[in-house]
Amino acid sequence: MAIRYPNGKKYQPNTPTASNAQKKTVSYGKRGMSLEQDLNDTNAYYLTHGLAVIHKKPTPVQIVGVDYPKRSSAKIKEAYFKTPSTTDYNGVYQGKYIDFEAKETKNTSSFPLSNFHQHQLTHMEGVQKQDGIVFVIIAFQTLGEVYLIPFEHFQPFWQRMLDGGRKSVTLQELKDVADQIPYGLNPRLDYLSIIRKHYF
Amino acid sequence: MAIRYPNGKKYQPNTPTASNAQKKTVSYGKRGMSLEQDLNDTNAYYLTHGLAVIHKKPTPVQIVGVDYPKRSSAKIKEAYFKTPSTTDYNGVYQGKYIDFEAKETKNTSSFPLSNFHQHQLTHMEGVQKQDGIVFVIIAFQTLGEVYLIPFEHFQPFWQRMLDGGRKSVTLQELKDVADQIPYGLNPRLDYLSIIRKHYF
Repeated sequence: MAIRYPNGKKYQPNTPTASNAQKKTVSYGKRGMSLEQDLNDTNAYYLTHGLAVIHKKPTPVQIVGVDYPKRSSAKIKEAYFKTPSTTDYNGVYQGKYIDFEAKETKNTSSFPLSNFHQHQLTHMEGVQKQDGIVFVIIAFQTLGEVYLIPFEHFQPFWQRMLDGGRKSVTLQELKDVADQIPYGLNPRLDYLSIIRKHYF
Repeated sequence: MAIRYPNGKKYQPNTPTASNAQKKTVSYGKRGMSLEQDLNDTNAYYLTHGLAVIHKKPTPVQIVGVDYPKRSSAKIKEAYFKTPSTTDYNGVYQGKYIDFEAKETKNTSSFPLSNFHQHQLTHMEGVQKQDGIVFVIIAFQTLGEVYLIPFEHFQPFWQRMLDGGRKSVTLQELKDVADQIPYGLNPRLDYLSIIRKHYF
């Protein structure tokens, strides 16, 4: 497996705690915080309310060197980011397996497919064959709009690219097959409301 | 979340590849290789045969310092192991959510419950409430015996400890509520055969 940095951007640790989540005074207009933060908060809401158990997977790293200054602690002194072999989020909702990938773009009229890797598509195809509920969430940061696209509707765009077609999906194309997830206060992005409509 | 090294043992990178898996000439008697290796191989078998999509989650690390020697690469130079907040393995089998934790012990007559953390039990309770299929796999390395215990039968042992009772489960107690997973060549540990029997 290739060791590389997933998206060429600097790593931003993103570990909210209950206390700093409550202290936030960000004003919520159309734009949310980062998509990852919004989804983590949403999943925390689902968890504490017994609605679903869905987590973001840890960032996969290849650990090369570890120091043991004390018996009880270990410091990783050399490690590298690995390309994830699956999607970032999965879990369970009413017995059903839930699996999705979330991406954001600053573009305002199209979504570049280079945000995904082939092995993620392969993973999602495998989940679909196992009758899992699998989808993609795409946030257009500048527009403040977030869409949920069932994988069966997203896959054809990928296939079109593989067949030599365009390397992006226009916003209008996405809108034709997606549901917009409205921003709320709590949960921030109630994507399960859309899942209920589509799959239950 | 506390940052600590999960089990006080040195970290052993465990990243098999298809090529080195084939080159192995370990003789298989009653004893397998490490439980993690056996389960990873089993999951790889399930995946390539389209039987299930089940993965081990990456080891969670708290990344503190990253170097960027080149634009396209990043080297993590300071990070720490975090206590996992979930179980290690999850995925989908015929639409159903599968979730389990796997532990091994060198003991021959009992399993120490200190191998688990309270938050893992809390996670498994949450999965159970969502009607997920959740269980524990325990390998007695010295005996070469591996058991699958549905969470509903494992949880009472934990509760007994919380209530002031013994901090371990005897092998006989486990046998009374577990199914033994026989070692096979491929898949190594066909735990889904037991899941089919119990849940389908």
